[in-house]
Amino acid sequence: MGEKKAWIFTLGTEVVRGLVVNTNAAFLGRRLSQLGIAVSGVITLVDDRKLIANLLRYVLRDHEPDLIVMTGGLGPTYDDITLESIAEALEKPLTINREAFEMLKEKFVSRGYELTKERLKMAYMPEGAVAISNPVGTAPGAVIRYGKTVIVCLPGVPREMEEMWVKHVENVIKEFGVLYTAEGSFTVVGVPEAVLAPILRKFYEPSGSTYIKSHPRGYELSNPIVEVYVSVTSTSIELAKSLAKEVCDKIAEEVVRLGGSIRHYGC
Amino acid sequence: MGEKKAWIFTLGTEVVRGLVVNTNAAFLGRRLSQLGIAVSGVITLVDDRKLIANLLRYVLRDHEPDLIVMTGGLGPTYDDITLESIAEALEKPLTINREAFEMLKEKFVSRGYELTKERLKMAYMPEGAVAISNPVGTAPGAVIRYGKTVIVCLPGVPREMEEMWVKHVENVIKEFGVLYTAEGSFTVVGVPEAVLAPILRKFYEPSGSTYIKSHPRGYELSNPIVEVYVSVTSTSIELAKSLAKEVCDKIAEEVVRLGGSIRHYGC
Repeated sequence: MGEKKAWIFTLGTEVVRGLVVNTNAAFLGRRLSQLGIAVSGVITLVDDRKLIANLLRYVLRDHEPDLIVMTGGLGPTYDDITLESIAEALEKPLTINREAFEMLKEKFVSRGYELTKERLKMAYMPEGAVAISNPVGTAPGAVIRYGKTVIVCLPGVPREMEEMWVKHVENVIKEFGVLYTAEGSFTVVGVPEAVLAPILRKFYEPSGSTYIKSHPRGYELSNPIVEVYVSVTSTSIELAKSLAKEVCDKIAEEVVRLGGSIRHYGC
Repeated sequence: MGEKKAWIFTLGTEVVRGLVVNTNAAFLGRRLSQLGIAVSGVITLVDDRKLIANLLRYVLRDHEPDLIVMTGGLGPTYDDITLESIAEALEKPLTINREAFEMLKEKFVSRGYELTKERLKMAYMPEGAVAISNPVGTAPGAVIRYGKTVIVCLPGVPREMEEMWVKHVENVIKEFGVLYTAEGSFTVVGVPEAVLAPILRKFYEPSGSTYIKSHPRGYELSNPIVEVYVSVTSTSIELAKSLAKEVCDKIAEEVVRLGGSIRHYGC
């Protein structure tokens, strides 16, 4: 049984233009990786229906992921076009989703607010979508199946996205990805990154189950300090942890043999 | 003369996995937008040569941008594969770049360090590339032309990327994009986002020269606070500024007519 593959789409012109830093991508990348799901990439796009539909079709066709998580573009404003764009890409009609409609009625009408055209817009979803309730804000999320791919749409506001992820999405994803990831890290002092590279390479597996990354923190020549990050994905968390520790220990041994030293050993 | 179009590629498994937050994308998105260049999207990918080459070919073929800015993957380690991936996508040979070689010799040999295989790797670039010197770190950048598209490759370490952007890249880009962008923003209190939406829509131009975005900051129903951001791109900075101010003033007038109030008016 191979690793499950995922892509993340973070939608919004304000993110592309750098008006906000994309913390949603980091949150989702980290959570999915910890669940043993291999994220191939993150795609951030301006609010343009044709562009979003085009990229979605490309990823579905050329990469066939098991999972796509999308954030942003579910709200009441004219540039909130995620569900329209998905409907276009999948060639599904955009219809009023009954569950989403009930969620909005509960949120607005029952509290004496009008369900304006802009608010009702949030109930339009591609046919067959399952609505996800939003405990923090107003826009419901959606889960859409397309062939073997599950597409999960969440709002772009981080506090809404994170709450919905933890409450409604993560449990589904956990059953979905049945692999576990363990992480370790430490700092190497006194060995330049270019000298460390062939050592790390010995333990790196391009297949993806052992991932090793070095981050230079000092200056390559005058004061080499390199942070090393190791993660191992396996079929049980115990196995993943012991494999990660083994890799860390072996690298550390070779560093000491080269005259370097290890700090902040957390493996 | 239309707006120039750009894409950003930020490469690195550590970014996809959320081990670092993608501040490079925000920096580049903001700088390019301020130069009047329309960024369509940001693509973040794990260190996989075939995957990077595939996405690059897709963007070149389906979107034909004027500019692609890439960060990451230029260093000495085995997972630094940006230039290899570009060579593969463009079907160009990867050869030792003379300028890059001289930069590395200057950096290492002249200071008594060995030019190891890993360090020399940083001089291999797609044929025809122009090397960009790195005043902070060791890996040179590269500029590659492909048809009408200019591809600029910068390191992933933010302090190196930003320094090279300011010193070597921005001036070239300035001549390239001959439009100017002015920005304005203010806070609307007392009008829910869904009520504000049709007002903003009147001034928004999908062509892209006037961009308006609302960010809900309070709670839609009980305490509506919405930040409004306006940007206008035009042929001179003065024209862009006066058009942006005009749009802000008109929105503010309508907000007040609806019983709302304006705070932090910066237009």
